[in-house]
Amino acid sequence: MASIVAELRGLLRSNQLEDSEVELRRYAVDQAPVIDFQLPLAVVFPESVADVQAVIRACSAAGVAVVPRGAGTGVSGGAHAVRNCIVMSLERMDRILDLNPDDETAVVEPGVVNAVLNEAAAAHGLMYAPDPASFRTSTIGGNVATNAGGLRCAKYGVTRDSVLALDVVLADGSLIHTGHQTFKGVAGYDLTGMLVGSEGTLGIVVGITVRLKYLPREVHTVAAFYPDFRMAAAGVLAVGRARVQPAIMELLDGGTLEQLDDIHGSDLSARGRSLLLIQTDGFGAAAEAEEVRDVLRAGGATVTTEVSSEAERLVELRRHSRGVEVDDQYRVGEDVAVPRSRLVDYIAELESMAARHRVNLKVVAHAGDGNLHPTFWIERTADAVEQDAMAGLQRALDDSITVALDMGGTITGEHGVGQYKLRWLGQEQPEPVRALQRRIKELFDPAGILNPGKAI
Amino acid sequence: MASIVAELRGLLRSNQLEDSEVELRRYAVDQAPVIDFQLPLAVVFPESVADVQAVIRACSAAGVAVVPRGAGTGVSGGAHAVRNCIVMSLERMDRILDLNPDDETAVVEPGVVNAVLNEAAAAHGLMYAPDPASFRTSTIGGNVATNAGGLRCAKYGVTRDSVLALDVVLADGSLIHTGHQTFKGVAGYDLTGMLVGSEGTLGIVVGITVRLKYLPREVHTVAAFYPDFRMAAAGVLAVGRARVQPAIMELLDGGTLEQLDDIHGSDLSARGRSLLLIQTDGFGAAAEAEEVRDVLRAGGATVTTEVSSEAERLVELRRHSRGVEVDDQYRVGEDVAVPRSRLVDYIAELESMAARHRVNLKVVAHAGDGNLHPTFWIERTADAVEQDAMAGLQRALDDSITVALDMGGTITGEHGVGQYKLRWLGQEQPEPVRALQRRIKELFDPAGILNPGKAI
Repeated sequence: MASIVAELRGLLRSNQLEDSEVELRRYAVDQAPVIDFQLPLAVVFPESVADVQAVIRACSAAGVAVVPRGAGTGVSGGAHAVRNCIVMSLERMDRILDLNPDDETAVVEPGVVNAVLNEAAAAHGLMYAPDPASFRTSTIGGNVATNAGGLRCAKYGVTRDSVLALDVVLADGSLIHTGHQTFKGVAGYDLTGMLVGSEGTLGIVVGITVRLKYLPREVHTVAAFYPDFRMAAAGVLAVGRARVQPAIMELLDGGTLEQLDDIHGSDLSARGRSLLLIQTDGFGAAAEAEEVRDVLRAGGATVTTEVSSEAERLVELRRHSRGVEVDDQYRVGEDVAVPRSRLVDYIAELESMAARHRVNLKVVAHAGDGNLHPTFWIERTADAVEQDAMAGLQRALDDSITVALDMGGTITGEHGVGQYKLRWLGQEQPEPVRALQRRIKELFDPAGILNPGKAI
Repeated sequence: MASIVAELRGLLRSNQLEDSEVELRRYAVDQAPVIDFQLPLAVVFPESVADVQAVIRACSAAGVAVVPRGAGTGVSGGAHAVRNCIVMSLERMDRILDLNPDDETAVVEPGVVNAVLNEAAAAHGLMYAPDPASFRTSTIGGNVATNAGGLRCAKYGVTRDSVLALDVVLADGSLIHTGHQTFKGVAGYDLTGMLVGSEGTLGIVVGITVRLKYLPREVHTVAAFYPDFRMAAAGVLAVGRARVQPAIMELLDGGTLEQLDDIHGSDLSARGRSLLLIQTDGFGAAAEAEEVRDVLRAGGATVTTEVSSEAERLVELRRHSRGVEVDDQYRVGEDVAVPRSRLVDYIAELESMAARHRVNLKVVAHAGDGNLHPTFWIERTADAVEQDAMAGLQRALDDSITVALDMGGTITGEHGVGQYKLRWLGQEQPEPVRALQRRIKELFDPAGILNPGKAI
């Protein structure tokens, strides 16, 4: 295995390969819980498509796995190193190659940070719509790998809906271009859509053509405090029944409010046991916000009335409500989604399973999508207690998945299966569907060198 | 081959199989030009998933091709019969199985007509967004097969964007379920998205879960007449630059206006040489329409000023601007798309190629998407003249494709490759990308019985 590192060193400039222990550790994991910690053999930093091709060809010939990586902000372990692998960080391929304000498209390298693209687009009255909470640091390539969602998805769609075309290095080192530069295009099978969300298991994305949307000139934000979490969830359905489509519809439970108070010194939890944050945008934003306020008030909420800079600040706080916590064996953030009509029921179930298994629970939800991020955690305590508590945590996680699936939901709304959620994939997808995917994987990557053990 | 018909007859009720010449002719083609006319061996009318499975199993065992068919409104020959085939019409599987107004989803059988679903959805303040011009007759199954577009796509997306999950009978007769019932879901590869637009070459879609959108309460329509087609196309870009997102943005040239006048006794062509129809919808519709009017007037348009019932009538006329014409060897409607910034240039090129090859031209465009439907035609005249004219028609078609591709466009924005556009697919997609698709096809359908010779 030393030979592949030596070979890669020969293919790249000296600052494009790291194999010091400190760097290997730094690039060994993303932000997901770690099940099977592995150090990579080396980390490579391609700066061009040709670099990516050279590395893939060498690893392919040597039968060495390649784990592609964006900013490492993923929370499902899609970028966790595997045994005997090279981690390929695309962070240096960070150029916006084209941004055409009339076409309303941009072409970017995978390492472009989401917020950087948005800043460039904003100069033209445009935006790149998908906005994962990590948008300030996560890369478009990583967003593509996981088909990332975010806060604005209910109105503007997920990453796949914004990706028109891809440049992809396949397992044999060849480069293909999929998709179309136009908004619409139906020539052949949708390889682009399948590559989005495939977590680097089918190819290495080295170029991305995205469609941009119009940056709304007007945004109105409504903050609605409720005495009870389920009432807040009912508010989400009430807004839906009014057939108003907010850009953002975020639900925060009491635990999340307390945490925000702790971090920011706010008094949110004194004002309610749950908060529903709704943002409307576009030409109809004011009228939509007015309708939202009426509907929420009728449902028992205390609603901010004016054009509220506080409400906008709350949306910013919400974006960062994961705080600085990283998931580990004591704390796991989930990513289930349920049909919207089941939101209230599911939240009731979550509360009951947390009590049953004696674990702590806090929940935020992209409620417009029915996408919930419950976090279960236990205190770090003495060993004997810990074993019990950790078993309870696992049971709570399993229950949260099973109940979501029973309601017609999914095990992952936007984070991806990665490595961590593979354990539950069989509950959602029966063997024939999984077999089809394995065969597609074999077709793209017969030797299985691309991010093995992830996604499917 | 008589044996497969006898076998199918044994599997189905007597009224579920037709093999009279008149019925075979009726189901032999869709609305595309016919290159290689073939009569099917029989037409079958499954009424259940089990019927579809039985037919597919029998045809698979006998090595007989199956051509699935919705309403036969396709214009690329995706439903044209091929040699030695069974046509499977899904028209009788036309039940809306579920419509959940809180989930904002519906589950339908493939034979449900687009307009019927929309009517059912409208009762709940919802709509199924993709609206191909054929929406009054075409089926959701056919729309899924072609990833159909329509007028509202620039704002609301194409069929793929509205499809959450599929039930699919594979070539071996097994039934799989792909996708998720939730708005978001990233578990595994996006098989659903790949099946959408695959024209029945990978499996037979027997159930479709769609996401519904909110039926806008307010709609404003602006009709803008221009002295010149290119000025109208420039108007499209000007609206984009104002960062206003209309629901509909349709461009009609002088030839189209004349045709509408002929059919409907209107005086459109007296009012301008081109018409741009823009519809805004939602809470901001009035303000958006006002902005649109200002922008278009500044670009030299004569714009309807009031809430205009005439403008709305024009949108209805536009929906039917194909009239009763069906493409044949004298007349071919195209479906290219170009990046929006190239609209004006492309239209200039179209006009010049029509003149160069001495063919007639009329153009309508879903201009918001850069998706153009130029129709080239020649007069039916004496044989000697005809040969020349038909050669000119083919050259004009070829040029329209080549120029669109040179501008970064696609050979098909929304109609699909079917059988008719296969000739140009190699110009858009290089061999490695086509080979990948063929291998995916082989993986799904090793014997090649599902709609052979189509799509890829």
